[in-house]
Amino acid sequence: MLALHGRVAAPISHLGTKHQGRRAVQLFGRPTSTHKQARSAVTPMAQKRAGDEEKMALVNKAKCFIFDCDGVIWKGDKVIDGVPETLDVLRSLGKKLFFITNNSTKSRAGYLKKFQSLGLPVQAEEIYSSSYAAAAYLESINFQKKAYVVGEEGIQEELDLKGIKHIGGPADGSKAVNLKSGEYMHHDPEVGAVVVGFDRYINYYKIQYATLCIRENPGCLFIATNRDAVTHLTDAQEWAGNGSMVGAIMGSTKQEPNTVGKPSGFMLDNIANTFKLQKDEICMVGDRLDTDIMFGKNGGLSTCLVLSGVTTEETLLSPDNKITPDCYMGQLSELMSVKDKLKVAA
Amino acid sequence: MLALHGRVAAPISHLGTKHQGRRAVQLFGRPTSTHKQARSAVTPMAQKRAGDEEKMALVNKAKCFIFDCDGVIWKGDKVIDGVPETLDVLRSLGKKLFFITNNSTKSRAGYLKKFQSLGLPVQAEEIYSSSYAAAAYLESINFQKKAYVVGEEGIQEELDLKGIKHIGGPADGSKAVNLKSGEYMHHDPEVGAVVVGFDRYINYYKIQYATLCIRENPGCLFIATNRDAVTHLTDAQEWAGNGSMVGAIMGSTKQEPNTVGKPSGFMLDNIANTFKLQKDEICMVGDRLDTDIMFGKNGGLSTCLVLSGVTTEETLLSPDNKITPDCYMGQLSELMSVKDKLKVAA
Repeated sequence: MLALHGRVAAPISHLGTKHQGRRAVQLFGRPTSTHKQARSAVTPMAQKRAGDEEKMALVNKAKCFIFDCDGVIWKGDKVIDGVPETLDVLRSLGKKLFFITNNSTKSRAGYLKKFQSLGLPVQAEEIYSSSYAAAAYLESINFQKKAYVVGEEGIQEELDLKGIKHIGGPADGSKAVNLKSGEYMHHDPEVGAVVVGFDRYINYYKIQYATLCIRENPGCLFIATNRDAVTHLTDAQEWAGNGSMVGAIMGSTKQEPNTVGKPSGFMLDNIANTFKLQKDEICMVGDRLDTDIMFGKNGGLSTCLVLSGVTTEETLLSPDNKITPDCYMGQLSELMSVKDKLKVAA
Repeated sequence: MLALHGRVAAPISHLGTKHQGRRAVQLFGRPTSTHKQARSAVTPMAQKRAGDEEKMALVNKAKCFIFDCDGVIWKGDKVIDGVPETLDVLRSLGKKLFFITNNSTKSRAGYLKKFQSLGLPVQAEEIYSSSYAAAAYLESINFQKKAYVVGEEGIQEELDLKGIKHIGGPADGSKAVNLKSGEYMHHDPEVGAVVVGFDRYINYYKIQYATLCIRENPGCLFIATNRDAVTHLTDAQEWAGNGSMVGAIMGSTKQEPNTVGKPSGFMLDNIANTFKLQKDEICMVGDRLDTDIMFGKNGGLSTCLVLSGVTTEETLLSPDNKITPDCYMGQLSELMSVKDKLKVAA
């Protein structure tokens, strides 16, 4: 489950589960009618919780772990039991650890405060937020023009760190379009990319400005930090996510964005390239089948589902579910049962 | 070309033409390399302007004309030459006339003022705005619940005329979401339809409210007045259209809307059913190939393109264009050359 806000992320949510169920069905067709048959056919590896053997195989194979945060590392404002100790063990074995989030409202530095406030010793470089991914993507293509930002300060901070010029963002949150006859909105012809992240101050000014850049500036890129339908702005309910902001710009430009956050592989490729890792040396740990586990499987990673977030064991084992992690466990700390049998990474 | 505002609609727009060209290519694949071959293969009926014979055939066959307005009836603030006289002749022959627009910001009554200000004698019942279409659609399914409106006053006025309860609309234009921890947005469980029209005051509050209704209220409908990428808010440039508002709600609900305006056939079916017309007794007159003419052809109508709006003769006859109207002429008043040879409708 992806947390949007440091302090306020949802506990196990019936909405999240419902939504996840819907998307799984959409992606993989109709459920099979014979439950027993279907289960044995599609979930050969995840029919029971990982035992010591599976845990040892998982950890020994991986040089690197990528963790989704909410539902894996913490839930709402609380660290999940045993997580700090488990991270310590993995670090002591020489494993690289990364924490990824589709949150774009904060920068890595902003997100680091959440970790620190929970007493989790993490470096900013270990955090892959989609705001960072957007800036890293522009850097990877040697982007030299200006970016127009629909989104919050996280994107701006990351662009600043990469030395990428930008306009828009929160400064345009209170701007309105004056619709008198003859009104013409000027836009900057130097904008070469529109970056769209979650923006609670989305308005018609920003939509039109972004649209003009994409439609009028030759070659202007359209980058989405993510396209999540919902997010967890507060712990009380699910909120419309960046799918809305991206959808608004898609609707007026009729163009598809280049998405840098999950489930696209950009963050993954960026980690693998930066740290010279093979994909099968990386293990993705998440609590959502249709985002985290799909993301890992699509990228050729090992995958481990934890039941400490939105997915229940019943959902995982249901014949309606066709997404099978390599292994699953109740929560991350269950790895501790084999801590004395694990090997140091090569 | 669809005008959004009475007083301010674009003249022939390079943007409109460019966009139209793009969409035509997108819809119908790559241009053929041999121009002459392609032209004769795909545009057998519209290689030259309609002569008297074609005009007479067109008018005598039609019991009813449906006109797109901007680029056909008027351009910006000016009635196109000879239009009032031509409408008079068609009326004198007993033809039914309808004027359709994807504009949802005004009601029929609101739009009537535009006609009146231009000296065009038209009845409100002859105007089919997409705001009216939304209300007519809900009436057609005997809708008894409440509608949540993302849009401007036109939709509300039409819902009032049909006696349909509604909330949202302009009243929610200044509302903001307070994102303190624990914040929960309540929504009305009686909302059974979200109607999304163009809304220059789109904000996150409305997006979230609409999303909650669609996701949480069992069976809640998602109705789009239209999904136009751009519209002509002012005469100086094109503006992001209702495609943006609809895209925002699609992005958070992952649902497709039911569209009642062009190019969907609802308005057409509504006219045909209400006035007991066969589809081939209706002639669609428009200035855009990819909306007006496509709309007419998809609905089984006769189609007539006029060159008084965004489409040039060059675009029409280009091998890139695969949308062929039954006939075309420079402007509507060219029908006047055969006025003495026309038959009164049966």
